[in-house]
Amino acid sequence: MVQPTATRASTDPRPPFVRNAWYIAALRSECGERMLARSVLGVSVTLLRTRSGRMVALRDRCTHRGYPLSEGTLGPDDVITCGYHGFRFDAEGACLSVPGQSGVPGGSDLRSFPTAENGPFVWIWMGDPALADPAEIPAETGFGDPSFRFVSGHVVIDAGHTLIADNVLDLSHESFIHATKIGSREVAETGITSESDEKRWLVRASRVMRDVECPPTYRERTGLRSPIDREQHISFFVPSLYVLDVMVVAAESQHDPATGPRRPYLGKVVYGLTPQSEKRTHYFFAIGRDYAQDDPQMDAAVHEGQLCLIDEDAYAVAVLQRLADEEGPMPEVSTRLDTAALIARRMLARRLRAETR
Amino acid sequence: MVQPTATRASTDPRPPFVRNAWYIAALRSECGERMLARSVLGVSVTLLRTRSGRMVALRDRCTHRGYPLSEGTLGPDDVITCGYHGFRFDAEGACLSVPGQSGVPGGSDLRSFPTAENGPFVWIWMGDPALADPAEIPAETGFGDPSFRFVSGHVVIDAGHTLIADNVLDLSHESFIHATKIGSREVAETGITSESDEKRWLVRASRVMRDVECPPTYRERTGLRSPIDREQHISFFVPSLYVLDVMVVAAESQHDPATGPRRPYLGKVVYGLTPQSEKRTHYFFAIGRDYAQDDPQMDAAVHEGQLCLIDEDAYAVAVLQRLADEEGPMPEVSTRLDTAALIARRMLARRLRAETR
Amino acid sequence: MVQPTATRASTDPRPPFVRNAWYIAALRSECGERMLARSVLGVSVTLLRTRSGRMVALRDRCTHRGYPLSEGTLGPDDVITCGYHGFRFDAEGACLSVPGQSGVPGGSDLRSFPTAENGPFVWIWMGDPALADPAEIPAETGFGDPSFRFVSGHVVIDAGHTLIADNVLDLSHESFIHATKIGSREVAETGITSESDEKRWLVRASRVMRDVECPPTYRERTGLRSPIDREQHISFFVPSLYVLDVMVVAAESQHDPATGPRRPYLGKVVYGLTPQSEKRTHYFFAIGRDYAQDDPQMDAAVHEGQLCLIDEDAYAVAVLQRLADEEGPMPEVSTRLDTAALIARRMLARRLRAETR
Ligand code: FES
Ligand code: FES
Ligand code: FES
Repeated sequence: MVQPTATRASTDPRPPFVRNAWYIAALRSECGERMLARSVLGVSVTLLRTRSGRMVALRDRCTHRGYPLSEGTLGPDDVITCGYHGFRFDAEGACLSVPGQSGVPGGSDLRSFPTAENGPFVWIWMGDPALADPAEIPAETGFGDPSFRFVSGHVVIDAGHTLIADNVLDLSHESFIHATKIGSREVAETGITSESDEKRWLVRASRVMRDVECPPTYRERTGLRSPIDREQHISFFVPSLYVLDVMVVAAESQHDPATGPRRPYLGKVVYGLTPQSEKRTHYFFAIGRDYAQDDPQMDAAVHEGQLCLIDEDAYAVAVLQRLADEEGPMPEVSTRLDTAALIARRMLARRLRAETR
Repeated sequence: MVQPTATRASTDPRPPFVRNAWYIAALRSECGERMLARSVLGVSVTLLRTRSGRMVALRDRCTHRGYPLSEGTLGPDDVITCGYHGFRFDAEGACLSVPGQSGVPGGSDLRSFPTAENGPFVWIWMGDPALADPAEIPAETGFGDPSFRFVSGHVVIDAGHTLIADNVLDLSHESFIHATKIGSREVAETGITSESDEKRWLVRASRVMRDVECPPTYRERTGLRSPIDREQHISFFVPSLYVLDVMVVAAESQHDPATGPRRPYLGKVVYGLTPQSEKRTHYFFAIGRDYAQDDPQMDAAVHEGQLCLIDEDAYAVAVLQRLADEEGPMPEVSTRLDTAALIARRMLARRLRAETR
Repeated sequence: MVQPTATRASTDPRPPFVRNAWYIAALRSECGERMLARSVLGVSVTLLRTRSGRMVALRDRCTHRGYPLSEGTLGPDDVITCGYHGFRFDAEGACLSVPGQSGVPGGSDLRSFPTAENGPFVWIWMGDPALADPAEIPAETGFGDPSFRFVSGHVVIDAGHTLIADNVLDLSHESFIHATKIGSREVAETGITSESDEKRWLVRASRVMRDVECPPTYRERTGLRSPIDREQHISFFVPSLYVLDVMVVAAESQHDPATGPRRPYLGKVVYGLTPQSEKRTHYFFAIGRDYAQDDPQMDAAVHEGQLCLIDEDAYAVAVLQRLADEEGPMPEVSTRLDTAALIARRMLARRLRAETR
């Protein structure tokens, strides 16, 4: 049952983000021998890989005067030296020494955040460390499935994460925003079925299309021609992880069974929406496919194509963010296609309330 | 009698603009076959001309998720399709269809605003539509008078509309800000007479100068030489419409009646100050003259000259806006020349209170 | 004893700056025949030198409509004419005439601020003029001592003055921020002694180093080689004036007394931290030396070197300001080296409370 909002929520000066959840913080390929600075849920953290290969995430503000550790140096012994006055820390965040005195004052240790490496990503847990279990990172991404090859990347979007969640949960926008690439009239015209799993904070939505147009991007990648059968199965793990299973296959209606079974082309579209602040969001993506696995040109085409799609979405959600900032909230009308997005919003509100109570 | 400010005024989150008034929204020449996006009184609207030639102004935010309609498409049948998920609207704002279901949900229609075409401008009424009467657009502009030829334009100024109203109502600034163009010492030195007409929310101010210097711009345009007789008659319709009737003529004191009557040169300076937000203002202008009517070079010179004058004013009011933002309000000392501007301020306050009560 | 914060402090809309104090407002070399516009403690002032050579500081907003006088003209008779509508003022700020009427309305005079010229700087007093005594400008700067030659300059830093005070009061940052110029390991490793003089709002801190490395900048300027004896003696006059006496000399431990006395090299580092706003600060500097007094190349090297040092500090404090804006306040851990900075903070809080009570 939904409880009334607890008072602590409204007086908490921190932005309203779910903290007890895994968020994607970085591409594994970003994390090498240098400290990476990243702002996650309004908190600046630094990510580093120790000599022994372990990923570490530390609060990126020195306990002395708040200078970013990522502006300092990381020694070969995994010792971090603050670049302002020289506080020294080990990779767990324990303060080793401070300048001008022998002892270390109480409270000098840096906060450390649980991390996990899963698929092409480094994940972070910004909430209570005791609750952090990497096994809870959903397997639906397909990162563990060798039949998929993934291409990944990262952009920052000038809009809050809820605007982006709305965007990816209502794929009817493909018919308009992405009309020249993956959209076709039928996406917006086809109804969806949706369901939710409150225990996993999961919303599912499916759209099954038969005998529809093969949009340009799929023509190029698979060689299929219209008509096709096409399916989209969304799993959105509130607040942040989005997995879209896509399937395209030559339309059954046109198929001659004598030629053998049809070859379905399967894809995985994984997005990690990680708030940087209330109005700016990290957008991590990993695009998987079960075909053309050894084709580096296909890798490049998928990567480039995904950046173009995100550009189109980023434009739209940034417009909405700017209008919300300038004109304030406005009433909304919802349709049946919004069912999944509305479930996700309510689930997010519940999850936030559960944390702030 | 001035009533104390009603409470609703202070809790209304909307910026303090008079809404029940005609504002200039666009040049007619801007409004062709494409939707024009414009922010008026802090509200984004889209202006479009239907196939039958009617001007329409609609709230430029789709009732679904708030995306600007002006980012969508306008069909040859005057049907607007939202560029995000495809809600469709007719030119009255009525929602025709939504994606993924057959019926249209309640509340899907767009708000439509009354418009009028008058002179070179499209006017809009952002308040109660029942009160919108295009006949109330003042005839003082001279747009209906065939003896005037007008040149018009539009700029956006980084200052609130009240700072600009102060500017145009106290023409003594011509002697300083516009010293090299239309100013002369005598403008600031000559007193004004002023009067007001509360029923029409109208302030008038007049300045009559005899045997004064002919400033450079008038020398160029009329061929007159100093001394001249010069008159300025301001009509300011609070909150937004400014009409300045100017007359220059060879000084009577130097005139030999035997050579026949003196030729007076008449001009109209029409400004529409339309708030975009509290700190940014649309500045529409139409400059009329009763001479050199068929001279396109004069048209160009007037247009260019007006942009230069506005540049000088825009610099000054933007400085004042920045200082007000940085340093807050400061006390002011007023002189006799400020009479009209002060009447206008008080009238604006009354008109605002009348609306918010 | 520290009193609880008076209520007026919290309702005063002005930024929390100490006003009854001398602040550096300009380099004397900046103040010639034109009005200089400068924002001091959030208040725009204009500085001008009269024909008789006196420095004058006036509120830089015309009493009429607030336009900056510095945008107007200064006549050969020291008469200032406002560039908007022509109010005229003398150099004391008295209004001489207003346009369009014969008398001058009450309240038309500009506020004038006490000034002083001392060393290479023009100083200003933004508080109660009755309390302004130029004799209270500390003599510790060395400006009155002919054995020092000074090089001066001015930059603006994107950080509040308290972040900069923290910076200059804890010189252990030299070992990190300025490692390649004036820092060496030993600065951060050597303890300080500190004391305070509440009557003069003065904090002192000293660091005496024996047999230490001669950092690159000192090698270049003095020809000394490691090891050296090195001393730093800070006098910080809260809220704004910082004087650092530096001494470097060949290490006594290596000295052969038979060769005569060692030549100590003395330097003065004078900083004036003048808030422009709460998040932006004027940084005036005067760097004095008792050697190479007639060497213009040394002047240039000192000036250039100082700008480089300030660049390094400016980067660090601007990072801290941005993080404070984005992430809010955070707890701090302090060490023995912070003693002087903490005393200065407490003294600033007391001085602010004393003024606002
Ligand atoms: S801020 Fe890190 S040591 Fe001072
Ligand atoms: S915002 Fe217009 S259809 Fe969704
Ligand atoms: S603002 Fe200075 S004279 Fe008007």
